[in-house]
Amino acid sequence: MDKVNLAGKLAMITDHWSPKIVGELNGQLVKLAKFKGEFIWHHHADEDELFLVLKGRLVIRLRDREVTLDEGEFFIVPRGVEHQPWAPEEVEAMLFEPGTTLNTGNVRDARTIDSPGRI
Amino acid sequence: MDKVNLAGKLAMITDHWSPKIVGELNGQLVKLAKFKGEFIWHHHADEDELFLVLKGRLVIRLRDREVTLDEGEFFIVPRGVEHQPWAPEEVEAMLFEPGTTLNTGNVRDARTIDSPGRI
Repeated sequence: MDKVNLAGKLAMITDHWSPKIVGELNGQLVKLAKFKGEFIWHHHADEDELFLVLKGRLVIRLRDREVTLDEGEFFIVPRGVEHQPWAPEEVEAMLFEPGTTLNTGNVRDARTIDSPGRI
Repeated sequence: MDKVNLAGKLAMITDHWSPKIVGELNGQLVKLAKFKGEFIWHHHADEDELFLVLKGRLVIRLRDREVTLDEGEFFIVPRGVEHQPWAPEEVEAMLFEPGTTLNTGNVRDARTIDSPGRI
């Protein structure tokens, strides 16, 4: 039950597309992540997912449009909606999502992380 | 299903201690608020509550200690834990909590807001 300094935790993250757990409340997880490049297309059948950009620009491609998030902007991807995060340059982001959420959603591949680390 | 710009939404908030809903996901609400001065001591019996400071300094008084949050820091007040937010100067904050959370928790007084507005 300590406070969390976002910059301090982000400094501990060196890999891309590997969200780390930094908080837990009401069955939901707060995660921090660094993104760079293109992630895979996927969806989460039962979970809405919030992306808040802390640094950089994150594009969330949807099948019918793109949502561009700059620092201080968030977007909630509703459950069931296919999306592909794309970070032209490195992005720092905070995520809110249920504890059950898998980073690659309905897809299982080399980037799937079954048990995100806590920092 | 639009993105949310935190600064833009915060510019719409003129009153203190009156969180506004800016997002909803998985039964949880994302709220933005401005604080100034002392709030009341209260607790939430069944809800954990996250305070993320976006601007200024927020002190969360607990019965046995104080947690001081500066910009880019968050703290999760666990359910059942009495707390009193205190903002010596104006603070801008993001809250993350269940849809059922009442701002004054177990206390009902003039500052209780039964239906927070959406902006």
